[in-house]
Amino acid sequence: MHAPLYQTAINIAAKAAFYLSLAMLLPAAVDLFYGHPNWRVFAGSAFATGGLSLLAIAATQGGSPLFSRKMGFLVVNLLWIVVSLVGAVPFWLSSLKLDFAKAFFESVSGITTTGSTVISGLDHAPPGILLWRSVLHWLGGIGIVALGLFVMPYLRVGGMSFFKMESSDTTEKPFARIVTFTRAFILIYVVMTVTCTIIFSYLGMSRFDAINHAMSTVATGGFSTHDASLGYFNSLPILWVATFFMTLSSLPFSVLILFIVRGRLDTLKDPQIIVFLSYLTALALAASLYQRIVNGVSAHEALAHGFFTVSSILSTTGFASDDYMLWGEFIVALAFAATFMGGCSGSTAGGMKAYRFIIIFNSIRAGLFKLIYPNAVHTVRYGKTLVDIDVQRTVFMFFTAYMFIWAFGSLAMGAMGYDLVTAVSAVATALSNVGAGLGPIIGPAGNFSTLTDPALYLLSLMMLLGRLEILTVLVILTPLFWRD
Amino acid sequence: MHAPLYQTAINIAAKAAFYLSLAMLLPAAVDLFYGHPNWRVFAGSAFATGGLSLLAIAATQGGSPLFSRKMGFLVVNLLWIVVSLVGAVPFWLSSLKLDFAKAFFESVSGITTTGSTVISGLDHAPPGILLWRSVLHWLGGIGIVALGLFVMPYLRVGGMSFFKMESSDTTEKPFARIVTFTRAFILIYVVMTVTCTIIFSYLGMSRFDAINHAMSTVATGGFSTHDASLGYFNSLPILWVATFFMTLSSLPFSVLILFIVRGRLDTLKDPQIIVFLSYLTALALAASLYQRIVNGVSAHEALAHGFFTVSSILSTTGFASDDYMLWGEFIVALAFAATFMGGCSGSTAGGMKAYRFIIIFNSIRAGLFKLIYPNAVHTVRYGKTLVDIDVQRTVFMFFTAYMFIWAFGSLAMGAMGYDLVTAVSAVATALSNVGAGLGPIIGPAGNFSTLTDPALYLLSLMMLLGRLEILTVLVILTPLFWRD
Repeated sequence: MHAPLYQTAINIAAKAAFYLSLAMLLPAAVDLFYGHPNWRVFAGSAFATGGLSLLAIAATQGGSPLFSRKMGFLVVNLLWIVVSLVGAVPFWLSSLKLDFAKAFFESVSGITTTGSTVISGLDHAPPGILLWRSVLHWLGGIGIVALGLFVMPYLRVGGMSFFKMESSDTTEKPFARIVTFTRAFILIYVVMTVTCTIIFSYLGMSRFDAINHAMSTVATGGFSTHDASLGYFNSLPILWVATFFMTLSSLPFSVLILFIVRGRLDTLKDPQIIVFLSYLTALALAASLYQRIVNGVSAHEALAHGFFTVSSILSTTGFASDDYMLWGEFIVALAFAATFMGGCSGSTAGGMKAYRFIIIFNSIRAGLFKLIYPNAVHTVRYGKTLVDIDVQRTVFMFFTAYMFIWAFGSLAMGAMGYDLVTAVSAVATALSNVGAGLGPIIGPAGNFSTLTDPALYLLSLMMLLGRLEILTVLVILTPLFWRD
Repeated sequence: MHAPLYQTAINIAAKAAFYLSLAMLLPAAVDLFYGHPNWRVFAGSAFATGGLSLLAIAATQGGSPLFSRKMGFLVVNLLWIVVSLVGAVPFWLSSLKLDFAKAFFESVSGITTTGSTVISGLDHAPPGILLWRSVLHWLGGIGIVALGLFVMPYLRVGGMSFFKMESSDTTEKPFARIVTFTRAFILIYVVMTVTCTIIFSYLGMSRFDAINHAMSTVATGGFSTHDASLGYFNSLPILWVATFFMTLSSLPFSVLILFIVRGRLDTLKDPQIIVFLSYLTALALAASLYQRIVNGVSAHEALAHGFFTVSSILSTTGFASDDYMLWGEFIVALAFAATFMGGCSGSTAGGMKAYRFIIIFNSIRAGLFKLIYPNAVHTVRYGKTLVDIDVQRTVFMFFTAYMFIWAFGSLAMGAMGYDLVTAVSAVATALSNVGAGLGPIIGPAGNFSTLTDPALYLLSLMMLLGRLEILTVLVILTPLFWRD
């Protein structure tokens, strides 16, 4: 592989690292404002990682401007690893005295908008640390949407691309289109965050809690400023607002962007939106009914907690309003199944995502028809679009690879001595970037602080794998990738 | 759909039912020999179901002799349901006083060679009942191999066919070849059963125990004549012998048949054999090492129990030598993962089977290459054979359908109030026709007797789905199948 390829990849990753270093000045300022001595850690980290990033940028200046698929894969992988490492520095050096495995886990969990935490005692943690976690979520969310909109379709890993379909109805050059769409996206993202903050404040959260939870909600992250997560506020209206924004953030941002940029709403007919909202409603109603009938909870409470919990898991946010492990075995099984499902493509949500289920179901149906009538022609469609065999195969590849990695990860967790429920739910929640597991250790009432370092590294890898849609990481692990 | 189609399907199913009715005379004779009054149940069941079968045969005589794919699917589904119903009659009417759900479950579990049991107190059960369970296993084993060798390749569900590949090197007509191969197979199956019986007797089992366990072993079923399963005998040599025969029965019978019929051994190079024996050895060594190092068990004991347990699960037999839930979390996770894997195609084993893993892995590898170099040609091979896109798709379809059915089944078990471990392991063990679940209820030390009737019906359906390779059942559930 050409040296300039590495050079350019490192250059891009270093630039991202530099911007993340700048972002550390925000928690530094907040800690300074609240008079917490931890501000020095953020300021120091910002200068150290910022300086190193500048050096790396300078050393790798002038690389190949050519963009190849290989470089795409290399950049995406390197960028997320470097940014995770940089994000870990303030955790590692902070007054919380986390070892590096924990700091790295927390950073990966933030950047990938997973939301699993190794920090207990959040209610008394330094405000800068709390804000840094939210900032990682929020910036991670932007990175994920950018990846889903611009990079994954190009690498043909995401499988679906709106902007490829849209390219015919615009005279703009590709790069100009990217700039237009990116601006529109950032605008929407900021407006959503601000709106969510205002409503949370209005409903009784402190300004600090409101900002942090809004960032976490809009990024479908899941970090909270309280150990009890949103349960701390004990407010059904807050649950409904969070449900609304988590669900909104699980929809393809392209729909909102096209509305803002072109005034169009026809992309709302995207089949994945219909399917996602259908399974969200079905599971939420099932959970609510179970709560109402089996546990005798009042109707409003059952609906609020039911919709909140299901949308929290499906949007891969991972907030908890209560310890739903105690609601009954059906809710546990439902939460487990929901962990795999995820939201829509082109959103901040993780998991397998609705469009893949559509393609898998239509492909299985076509396959069954073919078993009955082998000589007839059976096409697979996504809405009105024909899905070619390569996209079908990529979707099946993703699904099987996901399952195999989940199995291997669970076995490894078992070998480390974790019980089956902890093992399988930890790996699933990491791979889907949900954040909450099952069982007494990592369940909705627990956290990841007691896990051993090897387990935390394993789960960090799983979070990165899931966030980069698995195949992006597997590609760079094939020997062929490294042959010239 | 044509009336003659049903007519022929019912005719074939009724003939199978008639032969199964005849087989009831065997346990009747044994009960009579041991002086157990339950012989009347078997004799009565034999005459009643045999008579009904004869009536059905007579009523559907003279149907269409034409064999179509549609009829193939119809016959296979109908046959397994009818035979399961007939097999349930003696359990239902016996002195054990099982309700119909339990009787049906036990029969399906027998015929599909799953081996999950709802009968507790096996050590004191009527000998006829014990023998009937083994007979169901043994005959079910024949049915499965016949299905795998002759029917599934024709329906293109199994994906792999040896005899299709072999058809060029013989001058025999297809039907004559089927007769030759069937005779060879039955011969091998009988010789294996007799040999296994003799060795089990020699190693200290009573003659009755030896016959029953040999039938159960060779069919990779799992029913035992003791609640403690093979653990009852407390003998490492017995474990090794069982390991040998379970493993042998997980290999494609075509290999042995071709050796007997043609004197050829080159099919031993079948990649699925190598892969199956590799993962069996790897998992067994891992389990043994864990037992030796973590639990301090002696080397021989660790190896015997390790290989026995892993080959029991991978061959989808489901015998237990001990309560391996107590061996540690790693063994539990390993047993869980192994539950899905299965043996080779063309054997009595269930599960996903080794050849599917080979095709999935090679297909993923080709797909990853394609992501790097979209314009290069990437073929998928099974050994030296090219795997076309239809076979790849059928394998992916099977895998995804399996996972979705597992998820839905587990959710349903959760809704019935079962804990997550019981729910997910019950559905997995049923779908893979293994027989042993995890957890205190259905784990290796438990049985299925306390499950509710709806749960037993659900799991019966899962066993049938798994045994018929899922897609065979899904095909007849599509509306298109029933259109003319």
